Amino acid sequence: MNPRPSIGYDSSMEIGVYGLGRFGAFWAQLLSNKFKVKAYNRSDRPTPDGVERVGLEELCDCSYIFLCTAISSIEEVCLQLAPYLKKAVTLVDTCSVKVAPLASMEKVLPDHVSILGTHPMFGPDSAAQGIKDLPIVLSPVRISPEGRDFWAQSFSEMGLRVLAMTPQEHDREAAYTQGITHFIGRLLNELELQESPMATKGYNALLEIVRQTCNDPWQLFLDLQSYNPYTAEMRTRFEEVLGHMVDQFDAMEPKGDWNG
Amino acid sequence: MNPRPSIGYDSSMEIGVYGLGRFGAFWAQLLSNKFKVKAYNRSDRPTPDGVERVGLEELCDCSYIFLCTAISSIEEVCLQLAPYLKKAVTLVDTCSVKVAPLASMEKVLPDHVSILGTHPMFGPDSAAQGIKDLPIVLSPVRISPEGRDFWAQSFSEMGLRVLAMTPQEHDREAAYTQGITHFIGRLLNELELQESPMATKGYNALLEIVRQTCNDPWQLFLDLQSYNPYTAEMRTRFEEVLGHMVDQFDAMEPKGDWNG
Repeated sequence: MNPRPSIGYDSSMEIGVYGLGRFGAFWAQLLSNKFKVKAYNRSDRPTPDGVERVGLEELCDCSYIFLCTAISSIEEVCLQLAPYLKKAVTLVDTCSVKVAPLASMEKVLPDHVSILGTHPMFGPDSAAQGIKDLPIVLSPVRISPEGRDFWAQSFSEMGLRVLAMTPQEHDREAAYTQGITHFIGRLLNELELQESPMATKGYNALLEIVRQTCNDPWQLFLDLQSYNPYTAEMRTRFEEVLGHMVDQFDAMEPKGDWNG
Repeated sequence: MNPRPSIGYDSSMEIGVYGLGRFGAFWAQLLSNKFKVKAYNRSDRPTPDGVERVGLEELCDCSYIFLCTAISSIEEVCLQLAPYLKKAVTLVDTCSVKVAPLASMEKVLPDHVSILGTHPMFGPDSAAQGIKDLPIVLSPVRISPEGRDFWAQSFSEMGLRVLAMTPQEHDREAAYTQGITHFIGRLLNELELQESPMATKGYNALLEIVRQTCNDPWQLFLDLQSYNPYTAEMRTRFEEVLGHMVDQFDAMEPKGDWNG
């Protein structure tokens, strides 16, 4: 059975991608399976297969422009794009935090520019075996119901599991899921854990978490921890339970005759 | 091709298992695929299929007796068994720590009793899909080369990957593999993490680690942390890297317009 055409789909429609970093290159290529994709990057970087490399003005002629840049650069990028944006354009962010970047976009983008928040909960590592049933969060901020439904349906057709959430709902939930995963991965990386012939299955799963989280840019980790207001609470609670547990063991006498 | 018979195998040989807790029941059943297994438990507990339930005296007639009890009870159990142990018997512990319980066994068991340390690096959860290629550590302490080779070959024939290590080598490596995995699992359990529709693959892997480690008895966790001299160092280093990371973020201004 062929999927029915997406609502509001127009075969001449062009999708823009701003930023061809690790995630942006992956995302542009993924979208190019379904759409005509034009991509821009400030500096020299490889252009993914199936994607057309364009300048800033041509990028701004696209109907939808995905921003694939660091959370911390969203406001600056929007200010850079603003003068080139024509009437019908929608800017779509892909940040791992939603409240802060969407607030910046609402603040600096002209009123005629529509805004949609998305968070694909995967990247080149976790999607290595395909994207089927992987989650993507949609936070409609300043967009027509048709625009919102177009992307909800397009992502579903791509095989993704679409979750509609407000930016606040997203950030609270993300702090205790993605946020804590990256936090554990980076912490364990500091301990320089090694592969081991005696590794249990659980330990190998931990090493895999370290590898995947540390493959992502350090800036993503910093931004996840500093732009999501709920991660500070998560870190504090984590430190509390750790302190409590370490105190328990420190209070115990070492056991056994192990002066070996 | 049939595996050749194990060195020193005698079809009348009986293997004993002391303790039918979660691990002991699993271990007795596993051994019963290859050997005649007799098991003892102080209190009433179900007897696994294929295993014969016996009293303490009959258990002590076996050629090899596996101890499947808490690390903290090994010395007491050996003192209880000592009067019943005949000449040719070997006591084999299965503890997740090796230096302390083996030192206790050497101290309290009569000289004519042989001692072998083992640590099967898996349990009923991690072996749910079979034991092929899972690791088992062997620490020969007071045993003939024939007895040691008999078990190395028997475990290989069962499909396990046999690793010979001294008790010290084992404990150092285990603190940073199994020890840290259980530590993270119990810590995250205190945070009461929940399943989430927006879970990334990494987060789901973390939840699985919490489930598996918290399925094991609390006593195992306590013993892993208090009987292994290297886990204290692991916890201290973990607390240091956590403190350092939390301080870094606390020193940063919260970012973005997220007063939402």
